[in-house]
Amino acid sequence: MTAAAKSLLGGPVEIVHLGLASVAAAAGATGARVTLADFTPPAGGDPARMAQLAGVLSGPPGLAVDEANSRTLARILASRPHLVGVGIARDVIPGMTDGLFLHAGPPIGWDRMCGPMRGAVIGGVLLEGLAPDAAAAAAAAEQYAASGSVAFDPCHHHHAVGPMAGVITPSMPVWIIEDRSDAGAGTRTFCTLNEGLGKVLRYGAYSDEVLQRLRFIAGELAPVLAAAVAALGPIDLRLLMAQALQMGDEGHNRNRAATSLLIRMLAPAIVRTADRDRAARAIEFMAGNDHFFLNLSMPMAKCMLLAAEGEPHSSLVTVMARNGTDFGIQVASMPGRWFVGPAQAVRGLYFPGYAAADANPDIGDSAITETAGIGGFAMAAAPAIVQFIGGDAADALATTERMGRITAGRHDVWAVPALGFAGTPVGIDLRAVEELNVLPVINTGIAHRTAGIGQVGAGLVHPPWECFHAALAAFAQKELS
Amino acid sequence: MTAAAKSLLGGPVEIVHLGLASVAAAAGATGARVTLADFTPPAGGDPARMAQLAGVLSGPPGLAVDEANSRTLARILASRPHLVGVGIARDVIPGMTDGLFLHAGPPIGWDRMCGPMRGAVIGGVLLEGLAPDAAAAAAAAEQYAASGSVAFDPCHHHHAVGPMAGVITPSMPVWIIEDRSDAGAGTRTFCTLNEGLGKVLRYGAYSDEVLQRLRFIAGELAPVLAAAVAALGPIDLRLLMAQALQMGDEGHNRNRAATSLLIRMLAPAIVRTADRDRAARAIEFMAGNDHFFLNLSMPMAKCMLLAAEGEPHSSLVTVMARNGTDFGIQVASMPGRWFVGPAQAVRGLYFPGYAAADANPDIGDSAITETAGIGGFAMAAAPAIVQFIGGDAADALATTERMGRITAGRHDVWAVPALGFAGTPVGIDLRAVEELNVLPVINTGIAHRTAGIGQVGAGLVHPPWECFHAALAAFAQKELS
Repeated sequence: MTAAAKSLLGGPVEIVHLGLASVAAAAGATGARVTLADFTPPAGGDPARMAQLAGVLSGPPGLAVDEANSRTLARILASRPHLVGVGIARDVIPGMTDGLFLHAGPPIGWDRMCGPMRGAVIGGVLLEGLAPDAAAAAAAAEQYAASGSVAFDPCHHHHAVGPMAGVITPSMPVWIIEDRSDAGAGTRTFCTLNEGLGKVLRYGAYSDEVLQRLRFIAGELAPVLAAAVAALGPIDLRLLMAQALQMGDEGHNRNRAATSLLIRMLAPAIVRTADRDRAARAIEFMAGNDHFFLNLSMPMAKCMLLAAEGEPHSSLVTVMARNGTDFGIQVASMPGRWFVGPAQAVRGLYFPGYAAADANPDIGDSAITETAGIGGFAMAAAPAIVQFIGGDAADALATTERMGRITAGRHDVWAVPALGFAGTPVGIDLRAVEELNVLPVINTGIAHRTAGIGQVGAGLVHPPWECFHAALAAFAQKELS
Repeated sequence: MTAAAKSLLGGPVEIVHLGLASVAAAAGATGARVTLADFTPPAGGDPARMAQLAGVLSGPPGLAVDEANSRTLARILASRPHLVGVGIARDVIPGMTDGLFLHAGPPIGWDRMCGPMRGAVIGGVLLEGLAPDAAAAAAAAEQYAASGSVAFDPCHHHHAVGPMAGVITPSMPVWIIEDRSDAGAGTRTFCTLNEGLGKVLRYGAYSDEVLQRLRFIAGELAPVLAAAVAALGPIDLRLLMAQALQMGDEGHNRNRAATSLLIRMLAPAIVRTADRDRAARAIEFMAGNDHFFLNLSMPMAKCMLLAAEGEPHSSLVTVMARNGTDFGIQVASMPGRWFVGPAQAVRGLYFPGYAAADANPDIGDSAITETAGIGGFAMAAAPAIVQFIGGDAADALATTERMGRITAGRHDVWAVPALGFAGTPVGIDLRAVEELNVLPVINTGIAHRTAGIGQVGAGLVHPPWECFHAALAAFAQKELS
């Protein structure tokens, strides 16, 4: 030991240790006072994953990924999703046929479907007139699934997204969103019209009240909206979302501002194109549901992320989706390939009379909003939401900043006033999630686990680590081979 | 000096001084290092005002004032302003007659009126058909004023409020707001319908475009809205404002959320009561103007503050209003009595092509919003507003907290998410303004100083000290005599 070092150690030794606790223990044994910093090694310290991560973070492979991610982020930000119309699923969704039911999340069969998704399928069978009652519909769904006369397919396989159970049947009306950027080449995405709260199909309810509302939506609301959107011309959803983020929305669990702005834009066109009673009912239906815009923010997000798919070497996440049983993610450089783990329990607040034991695991395609940098990633824009999911306003700011650590950049137009107008964090980097041991956060509703009941609360949830571990392994194998 | 004190002073003496600089200078002369804290003595150190303040802050007189202010605040918070209808000024405003023009701020004659107020009076003369053109109208206004055939009166003398010039002529339609609390006894307040931006009467413009718009408002928009409000029933403005404060509005210079929520509420009733073209034009007119709700937030605030008038011993401010020449305030325990000082220059951002030299001094009754605890007092709810008036999001938070130091309490329903859902500060205590040397802050638009031009910017302004000094003197004399 040099004289200088000895002088430095003249007093009692105090060590602040950032690293493995086992290393600190050795120092502690010499009598030094050791303070352990809150630290988890990259990839949770798993040797295999640390090696995978090292390969895609450093050296030429890492540089290629960095550059690919910059290009991917630029593609996401360059997309220009516009609301361009309303159509019938079987007419407008690519690959949709009369024998096909779409659902949320990664692929799943009837046998593994959770309660609310089965409930929504039963409702879909009834809505399509394939069975006379719920019992027959459940039996029919099982038979159909076994015989293959009804096929199930993820919404995401058809450029569509669906909240909660996410069931889209052939006769349902859907919003049509189009990327109107030069590079977008008219990419279209799709989503049903939001049904409102209470007993609704997406939460697995299928009573007469639910079916009657769906028939009103298909028979009256959708034609009224189709005519209004046609009269008004395309609506730039990116700019509408930018306004809503300055008005307390985060675009997933809080959509009051965007819904109000949408009504304000559509109402004059509705009045000019529909007869009086239909116009009034359409506006009233939208005005009665603060979540009406959710079914536009979702396909907007999907449209942005489709622009990113297929970028070679990119480690950015382009899909996060749940079917209530499994959680699946996809990565820009491996389009169409699911990396799956078990859907997690949602931590949140329950409606009176319900508790955690009633809750279905995490469900729905709505995590596409977080994948595009809103929802849980934009909590700082929507501090009021903490009243419904627990926490306080400071948590909301901290959540957005934490998500900024695992994303490739910031949105150039979606500014958050409370963060000094910094953009929302966009482009989840699979590598950053593993390196920093920080999972994406998702704002979500909570469905009752039993078919036919509906929403019981709202809260926060994370994807399972399995998705990211599997994606990292596949990504490293691809990049390093 | 005791041994203990000597020991304490064993090292070099450092003094942090909170008090008069002259006192610190004496200490500094002994060789001690003196740091002056940012400090102004109560009432700016003026001996006469310090004596007045001491009398109404301490002892039994001070206690009586404290109790009166608590009651006053409770009365403000207990009021329940509802939008109940739309009427014609001469039919519904108490004391309104065909020879009367109402204007913003404290009383003023034609001779002392600023440019934009003269412009608005000229527009009013033309609108009422009292002169054939602008030159004749200006001459007529002067003659009328001299002869007394047209009288000018503050809006506030008639339970009305008007933004900027605030001119209300007999034929103009006005919103009718009613206090529907048990104690409110149906108190009604009034305000014109907001004209939109650009060349508008309230900023002193009176061209054909301005008059045509006013005729559309009176001839078509007002009847459509009157029918819709009648069909819908009373609208609780306090609850609507509570929502808007969670959506980035502060109710004075930012009203996008409240305007959107109002349209969302009114649109179905408009559709059901008006014919198609009128309904579409009415909704389009409202949707085209983010400030449409301002002319409801102002009479809502006036309604709340009328509930406080006449409370004996209260030092809370119930009116802040400007006519572009003078700024006037009133105090709850001295209703109807104006305390006046010169209207101040607004610090803010100018539209392209304009600068401070173009600006008229502070004008309008819209400071009634700050008097009721919104506007500048609720800046923390509307960080986006700093983009239009200068500053950053942290300034917005600090402004609301600073206003909390001069107010009697917090609103029980108007929660600000960014402040952990604390209420907006309500009830400006004249004593606290003087004691802490903190003036109320007001968000405002800036009018061109010349009649006929219009808005040139937006910014922040304070009342002149003269108002508060005069009010304190009168209040102390009343309480201590």
